[in-house]
Amino acid sequence: MTEKLDVAPLRGMRDFTPIDWVFRKKLLAAFDKASTKTGFLRYETPVVDSYELFERKAGEELSDQIYEFRDKSDRHLALRPEITPTMVRLYMGLKESLPFPAKIWSFGQCFRYERPTKGRYREHFQWNIDIMGEADVSAEAWILFTAVEVMKELGFDAKDYQIRVSSRALLSGFLLKIGVTHERHAALMTLIDKKEKVDAGWLKEEMAALGLTTEQIERLFTLLETHDAAEIGNLVGSENIDYQNLQKLFSFAEALGYREYLQMDPSIIRGLSYYTGIVFEAFDTQRQFRALFGGGRYDALFSRMTGKDIPACGLGFGDGVIRELYTAKFGYPETYEGVDMIVGYYDESLQKPAMEFVQKAIELGIKTDFMLSVQNPKKFFTMANKRHAKFAAYLAPEEYAKGEIAIKNMQTGEQKNHCLTELDRNFLP
Amino acid sequence: MTEKLDVAPLRGMRDFTPIDWVFRKKLLAAFDKASTKTGFLRYETPVVDSYELFERKAGEELSDQIYEFRDKSDRHLALRPEITPTMVRLYMGLKESLPFPAKIWSFGQCFRYERPTKGRYREHFQWNIDIMGEADVSAEAWILFTAVEVMKELGFDAKDYQIRVSSRALLSGFLLKIGVTHERHAALMTLIDKKEKVDAGWLKEEMAALGLTTEQIERLFTLLETHDAAEIGNLVGSENIDYQNLQKLFSFAEALGYREYLQMDPSIIRGLSYYTGIVFEAFDTQRQFRALFGGGRYDALFSRMTGKDIPACGLGFGDGVIRELYTAKFGYPETYEGVDMIVGYYDESLQKPAMEFVQKAIELGIKTDFMLSVQNPKKFFTMANKRHAKFAAYLAPEEYAKGEIAIKNMQTGEQKNHCLTELDRNFLP
Repeated sequence: MTEKLDVAPLRGMRDFTPIDWVFRKKLLAAFDKASTKTGFLRYETPVVDSYELFERKAGEELSDQIYEFRDKSDRHLALRPEITPTMVRLYMGLKESLPFPAKIWSFGQCFRYERPTKGRYREHFQWNIDIMGEADVSAEAWILFTAVEVMKELGFDAKDYQIRVSSRALLSGFLLKIGVTHERHAALMTLIDKKEKVDAGWLKEEMAALGLTTEQIERLFTLLETHDAAEIGNLVGSENIDYQNLQKLFSFAEALGYREYLQMDPSIIRGLSYYTGIVFEAFDTQRQFRALFGGGRYDALFSRMTGKDIPACGLGFGDGVIRELYTAKFGYPETYEGVDMIVGYYDESLQKPAMEFVQKAIELGIKTDFMLSVQNPKKFFTMANKRHAKFAAYLAPEEYAKGEIAIKNMQTGEQKNHCLTELDRNFLP
Repeated sequence: MTEKLDVAPLRGMRDFTPIDWVFRKKLLAAFDKASTKTGFLRYETPVVDSYELFERKAGEELSDQIYEFRDKSDRHLALRPEITPTMVRLYMGLKESLPFPAKIWSFGQCFRYERPTKGRYREHFQWNIDIMGEADVSAEAWILFTAVEVMKELGFDAKDYQIRVSSRALLSGFLLKIGVTHERHAALMTLIDKKEKVDAGWLKEEMAALGLTTEQIERLFTLLETHDAAEIGNLVGSENIDYQNLQKLFSFAEALGYREYLQMDPSIIRGLSYYTGIVFEAFDTQRQFRALFGGGRYDALFSRMTGKDIPACGLGFGDGVIRELYTAKFGYPETYEGVDMIVGYYDESLQKPAMEFVQKAIELGIKTDFMLSVQNPKKFFTMANKRHAKFAAYLAPEEYAKGEIAIKNMQTGEQKNHCLTELDRNFLP
């Protein structure tokens, strides 16, 4: 007696069924189409890489959220927690051969060992786009343009989501200006990153505990809560270069047709410590879900990982939150993809003639499913329904004797006979 | 000082660069197109699953070629060595909701820890198609039809490769007929599987060591070396059901238009022990490479893994050997994919007008790369070449003053001015 098989995937991991594939196909096509039409080149890196590579990116011991193990030669390996470190490795091996600046993209799986919650798994897939070798903010503008194109492909516009933009460099400059010295910036950024989720009173106490004066805290809060560009200019000084870069991004966004998606929001930090300039995060307008995508400029990463100074910026867009947003707006697909036609036959003597018919249809590019064994008409049409076939072609002795096959339009119920052997591309009514 | 970054992926693992992506895109499109047009439904399962699942499939301790590890909750996990076990798990959770018989396909990565050799890696991707719930040999015929469609999409025909077909059941029946009892079949199959690679004298000695008489060995060799269907019929008896199934497969292949690809070859065994009926393997005609794809009927697997009796057959098609064959016939792509157009500009004042032009072009569906910063004409056209752009549009002050942009056909060298703001879908000359 076989022990019962557990049909669930591992905790926190996902199967994609033929029903899931309907949305997934749309999502993959959107990533592919948008990346291609804005000139990005595709790459792919392995999901397994050396632990040391990811440590080098993090600049410290990795958290215990990483899936790590040793192979049989005692190599210390990891399932990649993100694509960026492997992208840096790949890029360093290729850079001379690529156009410069280089625009590259990938879609791949990442792993993290953490408690799974709604819509948050132990693995997820991420679309990554990056531009290497361009210091101008036009690179950020191009990255965001491409992300907006993905969202358009999926049917979303500025009523559905907004991109909040900020600048780490601007915030750092402001902190220095109000007298908060460098060594406290990292801790402060971590606090600011929590702003939306915690009580303002608690946040201010924590800032005071870092040694900020009441006046410093008030001035910082004023900046964080200002979403108007001109007012931010007043606060930081309009000659401030990081402020001017933000202004430039907004002006480029206008030229590229997506200005309406952007909001200035100085409280956007992004968790990852490696961002150095402009950062951004997109959220659904209702704020029902976590961030849809996020990214920014990370000019110091290449130098830390490789010793070479290469300005870079990029964006990561996971497959989880977008699915939730899509479901909220359009509903999640309820069934798998259909076919143009399904073919059945009445008895075994008709199996081969039916196959010949199917072969011709498929060569014409018609997506056709085929009943591999004899079906009575009733069972066949039930199956044609279940297979979501637009047309159901059934070969019975009477029609076969006349060199014909009956074709039923499954939507209208209309049925016509068609010559069994002479088909052209438009033979389906 | 940063320690030098090793730009190579792990031993036996592959990066796919933008150049590799040219072939990969073609291959993925061929799998997708063929599977879809013959009515298969797509699924995807995780690359990480429980070790026990793979053990259950193998029916024994797994070899030490498996990547296994324990997660932080001490679960015994494995990087999947093949897709089939996870497919069985997925199918058991879905079967009522799918059409029956179910035709499903996937493309995914598999891992094995072994010494990497030319074209054989520690990971590879595999296209898997399977049909569950059909005992008729029409299922095998449909599987092979779909594989032939993939090869056609890639530009291969019967001059390039052949599919060798055999039947494990037929061979078992023949062994019984010549007096070789069941308990020796497994060991014999393992020997026969080596036939092409070893010396016939050695093979016969090994068979004798298993207790076969000289006459049994001679009769077995006669069968293994017979590639003619009628002669095989004479050897096994034409009323033999497994022989009739092979005949049926050839006749279905004729109806489905791929008879010319098939060869009868009783020495085809397939390494995996779970096949029960017809088995097949495709090789390039020159026999330069290992098998392109292979598969067969595995009616006992579901019952062993799940306790349910579900007839099934399937095929696996890796991404390694096909790349070698493609390279031998067409050459491996030498560079990455180009774009329709690339856009540059003479000075910073033209950056925004150029962006507006680009945005319009991209909305029209024109694949466009954009120079993110100012380029002088010489550098720009060099980059346009490197980016394999069909057209290079350059905005200079003189043209801008007239509301125009210069567009150069990079193939003919012809250059024309075009209105900067009025574009239609066919604006590229």
